[in-house]
Amino acid sequence: MLKLEIQTVRKEELVDITDRVAQAIRDVNLKKGIALIYAPHTTCGLTINENADPDVATDILLALRKAVPDNLPYAHLEGNSTAHVKASITGSSLQLMVEDGELQLGRWQGIFLAEFDGPRKRQVWLQFIQGSLL
Amino acid sequence: MLKLEIQTVRKEELVDITDRVAQAIRDVNLKKGIALIYAPHTTCGLTINENADPDVATDILLALRKAVPDNLPYAHLEGNSTAHVKASITGSSLQLMVEDGELQLGRWQGIFLAEFDGPRKRQVWLQFIQGSLL
Amino acid sequence: MLKLEIQTVRKEELVDITDRVAQAIRDVNLKKGIALIYAPHTTCGLTINENADPDVATDILLALRKAVPDNLPYAHLEGNSTAHVKASITGSSLQLMVEDGELQLGRWQGIFLAEFDGPRKRQVWLQFIQGSLL
Repeated sequence: MLKLEIQTVRKEELVDITDRVAQAIRDVNLKKGIALIYAPHTTCGLTINENADPDVATDILLALRKAVPDNLPYAHLEGNSTAHVKASITGSSLQLMVEDGELQLGRWQGIFLAEFDGPRKRQVWLQFIQGSLL
Repeated sequence: MLKLEIQTVRKEELVDITDRVAQAIRDVNLKKGIALIYAPHTTCGLTINENADPDVATDILLALRKAVPDNLPYAHLEGNSTAHVKASITGSSLQLMVEDGELQLGRWQGIFLAEFDGPRKRQVWLQFIQGSLL
Repeated sequence: MLKLEIQTVRKEELVDITDRVAQAIRDVNLKKGIALIYAPHTTCGLTINENADPDVATDILLALRKAVPDNLPYAHLEGNSTAHVKASITGSSLQLMVEDGELQLGRWQGIFLAEFDGPRKRQVWLQFIQGSLL
C-alpha cells in the first residue's frame, strides 16, 4: 500500500489529487491493471468529477450544504455531523483502470479528496492490482 | 478494457445496462472473478437498484431533484451543475462478483447508468479480474 | 464468495459489521490483498463511517431522512421509495485493503450495513483478491 499525504487548507474543499495518483502509477511502473483508492477518514470522502472548471467543485460543496443542512438536531457533540454525512454520501473507496501505463479517466474527469471538516492532514491510500485481468 | 456505448434519450433517466454487462461477462468467458464498471463522465453516474418496477428509477430521479435543487446560486456557467452533483452522489465506479460464469446480483438488483444531463452518447468501461481470488 | 447473514431489527439503522468482516479475513487467512464487500439488496446499502460514537450513525440517518423526504409524490407503490433512494446514495459496493493479515481501516472507521427498510434478513457478500498486487 502506498500512502499520499494531503494537507487540506479550508473547512470544505475538493482537492484535486489526479496528478499524484497518475504519478504514483508511473512510479510503480504499472502498465495494465486497477488502481484502488481509499480514504481512511470519516469526515472526508473521495469523488470523481470535473476538474477543468473549478466552479464545479464549488457547486458540489454548495449543493451538499443545502442537502445536508447545518441546523438539524444532530446528536454527535463534536459539531461536525454534516461532514460525517457528506463523507458517506461521496464514499471512501474508488477504483480506476490503468492501460498502457496511464490512468484511464474520462476527458473531463479528475479525482478529488472531498474535505468536509478541514483544515486537516489527510491520507489517501493506493493499492494496485497487476495482471489477472481478462 | 471493454467499452459499452450507450445513447441516452432523456435529460434524466436510469438506463438499465444489466443485460449488457452480463453478456460481456459471457463473451469474455469469465467463470469466476470480479467485474469492475466505470463511467468516464462527470454528469452521469452508475448505480445499482431495483429494475423490476420502473417506478423505482423514476422515484430516485425525483428525490435527487429535490435533494439537489435547480435554483441554487451555482457558479458553473454551463447550467448543468445539478448533474455534476448527482454524479458525485451516485458515484462513478462499481464492482460486482462473478461466479459460475454468471454475474451475481441480488434478486431485485439491476445495474444502471444514471443520466443527469442527457440526451448524450455515453460510455461504460468494463474490466474483469480473473483468478487470484481466495 | 462468502456470505454474511445479518438480521436487522429496526426500520432504519447502521449495523456495524466491521468485526465480522475482519474475522472473515482471518478465517480465510488472507495476508495481503483486497476485500470486496457487496450488498445484494435495493433498500439497504454499505457505508464506512465512525463507529466510536453511535451518535454519528444516528445523525447520518437523520440527515438522509431530511435529504430524501417521505412526502414526495413517489410512484412506486410499496411505500419504501425513500429506502431505494438512500441505497443508491450510500452505494452497494466497497473495497478495502488488507495488509499483514489485518483489515486496514482509518482510526475512526467502521463498516456498516445501512438498513433503510427493515427489519429484514440481509446478506453481505465478501470476495477476496489475493496476490497480483504491486
